[in-house]
Amino acid sequence: MALDLAQKPHDRLAEMLSADMEAVNLLIRERMASEHAPRIPQVTAHLIEAGGKRLRPMLTLAAARLCGYSGPYHVHLAAAVEFIHTATLLHDDVVDESAQRRGRPTANLLWDNKSSVLVGDYLFARAFQLMTEPGQIRVLGILANASATIAEGEVLQLTAAQDLATTEEIYLKVVRGKTAALFSAATEVGGVIAGAPEAAVQALYTYGDALGIAFQIADDLLDYGGTASVIGKNTGDDFRERKLTLPLIKAVAKADAAERAFWVRVIEKGDQREGDLQEALAIMSRHGALEAARADALVWADRARAALAALPDHPLRQVLDDLSVYVVSRLA
Amino acid sequence: MALDLAQKPHDRLAEMLSADMEAVNLLIRERMASEHAPRIPQVTAHLIEAGGKRLRPMLTLAAARLCGYSGPYHVHLAAAVEFIHTATLLHDDVVDESAQRRGRPTANLLWDNKSSVLVGDYLFARAFQLMTEPGQIRVLGILANASATIAEGEVLQLTAAQDLATTEEIYLKVVRGKTAALFSAATEVGGVIAGAPEAAVQALYTYGDALGIAFQIADDLLDYGGTASVIGKNTGDDFRERKLTLPLIKAVAKADAAERAFWVRVIEKGDQREGDLQEALAIMSRHGALEAARADALVWADRARAALAALPDHPLRQVLDDLSVYVVSRLA
Repeated sequence: MALDLAQKPHDRLAEMLSADMEAVNLLIRERMASEHAPRIPQVTAHLIEAGGKRLRPMLTLAAARLCGYSGPYHVHLAAAVEFIHTATLLHDDVVDESAQRRGRPTANLLWDNKSSVLVGDYLFARAFQLMTEPGQIRVLGILANASATIAEGEVLQLTAAQDLATTEEIYLKVVRGKTAALFSAATEVGGVIAGAPEAAVQALYTYGDALGIAFQIADDLLDYGGTASVIGKNTGDDFRERKLTLPLIKAVAKADAAERAFWVRVIEKGDQREGDLQEALAIMSRHGALEAARADALVWADRARAALAALPDHPLRQVLDDLSVYVVSRLA
Repeated sequence: MALDLAQKPHDRLAEMLSADMEAVNLLIRERMASEHAPRIPQVTAHLIEAGGKRLRPMLTLAAARLCGYSGPYHVHLAAAVEFIHTATLLHDDVVDESAQRRGRPTANLLWDNKSSVLVGDYLFARAFQLMTEPGQIRVLGILANASATIAEGEVLQLTAAQDLATTEEIYLKVVRGKTAALFSAATEVGGVIAGAPEAAVQALYTYGDALGIAFQIADDLLDYGGTASVIGKNTGDDFRERKLTLPLIKAVAKADAAERAFWVRVIEKGDQREGDLQEALAIMSRHGALEAARADALVWADRARAALAALPDHPLRQVLDDLSVYVVSRLA
């Protein structure tokens, strides 16, 4: 998996799709306006202009383009995808009581929780308005399904937190909700709007789904410092928040009685003491939990790559391929 | 406007539409389920089974039936309308930090704000899934527009609260967001799904819009005890929360210097003392603000009735007519 890291794949995507992305940004600015409620564009701009990578709308644009689409509506769908993403971020920050997002104070902190809830609702509604414009009901179904999966995954994460009975199956549902559902919807609607053959649409779904899962497993693994077990500044956030992510679930599944008592104390009861994170990492290493999670991430990244074979040969396909390699390259 | 009050119009609607409503209730129970996240149906059931009047889904069913619809999809749209309504209630209670709804503790109190935000998001997504099933993109546009208007109205209400510069125009936008937008969408989609002629669809929109506005003005007026100026147990909630509703806006518009100072103190500064509500009512009476608000409510109720003329003669049309009389009869 040799990879040219001179330019990151999402930077190459941004370059190749720059004209389309300019149209998306214009449409976003236009549609987040509200004549009488200036609070809405203020809150939205705070988040949208903080400079997220805009990976999701680029996935939609790339999918449509590589399937040969030349109409105008991939731009609407890309903007809708970004609005849904922004709405979920606004609501997430309320749910997590976060203080920072993209290196800036969160909207709930700058304004209030009320504004974050309602502006999120507004963006969600605006997303569905945008989606009606191409006149294809199928894209609405795909993005409504994704939205339901996102909300369900978040509720699941809420109730699964601190619960040692959380299985890998539930983890996968949480991960789909958190990341993969919008990735796969973003790529799938790109194919649908392009009128691509069913096999290509299915491949785009599979690519987005597997990419999102690989991405999230990698993220959760990096929260424990990756497989290098080097404790960095931000290592262990999930541990401190008692979240059941894949490495932890794998370690719990193999725990002996003493280890189980440890997990019950630190995760279920939340009684965490000095040195507990080091102990958690030692137990994970002993059971190969970090290596096993990394192996899972690589499998999902491979599935993403494999799905691309069903798509037309196109420079954008190569970048999507590189992207699937890139998301797990951080684990090398 | 003689009215048989022996049976309230919405009770007659419930009776005439009982078979349809049974199908709606079944569909609601089916679609609020979540295999892995039992928190979702728990929160939803708490609210939905608390026994709201289900006026909104009944409006959709009635509109479809009186336009001669005999297919199955008015049930999906009615369920979608109820899901949107329930989602907004869940989010409202977070925004208003309410402790009671329909005589029971609110979900945010029984569970937490997080659950209310996320379950609301889930129901909103489920509503859009339901809406895709009839395969008519126009109904999605109508309900997406209504959802945007609802959220915008709520943000507007948030920023307009305590602001004496709030005009009747802004009040109308808030009222459309709060009540009329979902009423008018509920009736309009009933006509659209029935394939009714454009004039009938437009009349259904106008009926729902005017009914919702009349209803909300009446509600806001009753918060000041109606025009009788009798102070009851719940009189003055809006005053204490410093909300700019129609009677107050009308009184502020006519205020002399001394009255204006009073409004600045009690509404803008929130410095409310014993006897201030009585003083506010006295000022409103002096300027005929309560009577003027009542006159506006009657005008909107008349507009609702007048719109019905463009619809087919049907027993349900008579009940909708009675309903428009009923919503303002509380102000007699």
